[in-house]
Amino acid sequence: MQTTQYYQEAFINYLNAFTVKREPLNLYEPVNYILQLGGKRLRPVLTLMTAEVFNADYKKALPAALSVEVFHNFSLVHDDIMDAAPLRRGKETVHIKWDTNTGILSGDAMLIMAYQLFECYEPQTFQQLAKLFSKTALEVCEGQQYDVDFETRQDVTIPEYLKMIEYKTAVLVGAAMKMGAIVANASKSDQEDIYSFGRLLGIAFQLQDDYLDAFGDPKTFGKQVGGDIIENKKTYLYLKALETLNDKEKAELTSLFSSVLEDNTFKIDRVKQLFKSSGSAEATQEAIKKYTNDAYKVLENLSISENKKEQLKDFGHALMKRTV
Amino acid sequence: MQTTQYYQEAFINYLNAFTVKREPLNLYEPVNYILQLGGKRLRPVLTLMTAEVFNADYKKALPAALSVEVFHNFSLVHDDIMDAAPLRRGKETVHIKWDTNTGILSGDAMLIMAYQLFECYEPQTFQQLAKLFSKTALEVCEGQQYDVDFETRQDVTIPEYLKMIEYKTAVLVGAAMKMGAIVANASKSDQEDIYSFGRLLGIAFQLQDDYLDAFGDPKTFGKQVGGDIIENKKTYLYLKALETLNDKEKAELTSLFSSVLEDNTFKIDRVKQLFKSSGSAEATQEAIKKYTNDAYKVLENLSISENKKEQLKDFGHALMKRTV
Repeated sequence: MQTTQYYQEAFINYLNAFTVKREPLNLYEPVNYILQLGGKRLRPVLTLMTAEVFNADYKKALPAALSVEVFHNFSLVHDDIMDAAPLRRGKETVHIKWDTNTGILSGDAMLIMAYQLFECYEPQTFQQLAKLFSKTALEVCEGQQYDVDFETRQDVTIPEYLKMIEYKTAVLVGAAMKMGAIVANASKSDQEDIYSFGRLLGIAFQLQDDYLDAFGDPKTFGKQVGGDIIENKKTYLYLKALETLNDKEKAELTSLFSSVLEDNTFKIDRVKQLFKSSGSAEATQEAIKKYTNDAYKVLENLSISENKKEQLKDFGHALMKRTV
Repeated sequence: MQTTQYYQEAFINYLNAFTVKREPLNLYEPVNYILQLGGKRLRPVLTLMTAEVFNADYKKALPAALSVEVFHNFSLVHDDIMDAAPLRRGKETVHIKWDTNTGILSGDAMLIMAYQLFECYEPQTFQQLAKLFSKTALEVCEGQQYDVDFETRQDVTIPEYLKMIEYKTAVLVGAAMKMGAIVANASKSDQEDIYSFGRLLGIAFQLQDDYLDAFGDPKTFGKQVGGDIIENKKTYLYLKALETLNDKEKAELTSLFSSVLEDNTFKIDRVKQLFKSSGSAEATQEAIKKYTNDAYKVLENLSISENKKEQLKDFGHALMKRTV
């Protein structure tokens, strides 16, 4: 097993060689654009790393890793249209740089190309990868739909929220790792366990994203701190606070979360106070810890060396500290 | 081999049993809605028919046939968004009945579900079907992009136009038939020939659609006669007319095709006159005949009985007469 940085570099080299040179240009230029916007490439790195955890050469997993990254970027292109987002990683989103129709069609092409990347594997492996991919991709769509539905619902429960982030974010992390295991011909039970590890870590990661959005360090978080509060997003922090606040504070939080303001300074401060006083901030940190520990516990079942388990755990630590 | 109507009924029964009962409803209700809008189900019928041409039970081809139909409807949902079309088969389009975001996301789900329908086949067949599907689906996206690009281009050539309709329409007809052949374990050469038959017939069908859009009988054509002329669509009729008209008439046709009018009566009449006087109407009918005959010629190569070849030819005749 190599370092995260090693896999990142290997993946980026492979990605760069993939540049689509087909016509029509208006279909494929946006594909190259979004794939070159950068990012940490965490999902494909996990695919490569997992292949080596199960004793395969990471190179064998490069097409599967690229498929995961192409799919992830497909979902970004279509989500950005749905969210009317102008920027992605500080650059114009595809539907802004081109137009909505281009965003729809180039996204469609990427979803198909993600399947094509499995074609180099022999039929048994191909079918396993494509089945896992389809199941995961459909869950990601379902997660996105739940996210949209929740915007206009006032009765979202915490289990519903957890299911939404599991589908929208975590299953792809699990699938990225399981694909590495499939390529490496790992046993079915190892495949399931590494999927669970990724899925649980993915949930913890998203909950931490919710937490850092309110309480993170503006210097290191990468996104605008308080962004979820400004947009009235019903995150774990918000739903948990509603559970424990008294009626008066609950009404105040609900009212704050129905306002759209020019200056959000007071709103952000007050909401953070309520997240803290309600115990929601602490409960969120505990949930993060719980999902992370659940993920580590699953590692115990794997038929791999203790050394490798430690490395996966280290990756988990680094991920939660946002240093990878 | 059974009648077209027999396969249509068998397919519709299978389709009805497929109704998606999963949540979230906002994702899957539009899927059921578009799949139940009707239509002649020509593509899936071709898949079933081809399976029996190559001596397999059509029932074995039902999942592949449904995949083709789900993909076709995915492309309708996304194309209707791009074309801002309010109606489809006389009913509201998905993005009108729901909204654009629902249209995008439900379409994405359908594309994934189309792949999932191959999962019941064993790995070798699964891979062949999925590879053909991906290649075809990407070509359909390319065809749609060319169609969009052509709207704002004044220098579209006839070979470019033919490539566009081949990709946007004809390759899916070829793929629908080849999938029946794959399921039936036909030889590679039979697979290729039946694909060519479908592709050539698909081009003839689309050219005939162009022709009937101008010269069809309003009672039987199904769409508004003159629709392409109203929308200034650069069809085969238009491009061929430009090739042969003198400079003055050419300028007149170009000018007519840059106008958007409230009353199109004169425009439609005059354009049809020009299509006739230029010889374009006749040239289009000849092209239709040529592609149809090319399709029939390919049938000769197939290792099937003369009786079956005749039946495929009869289907071609019926298709071109629009009686199926």
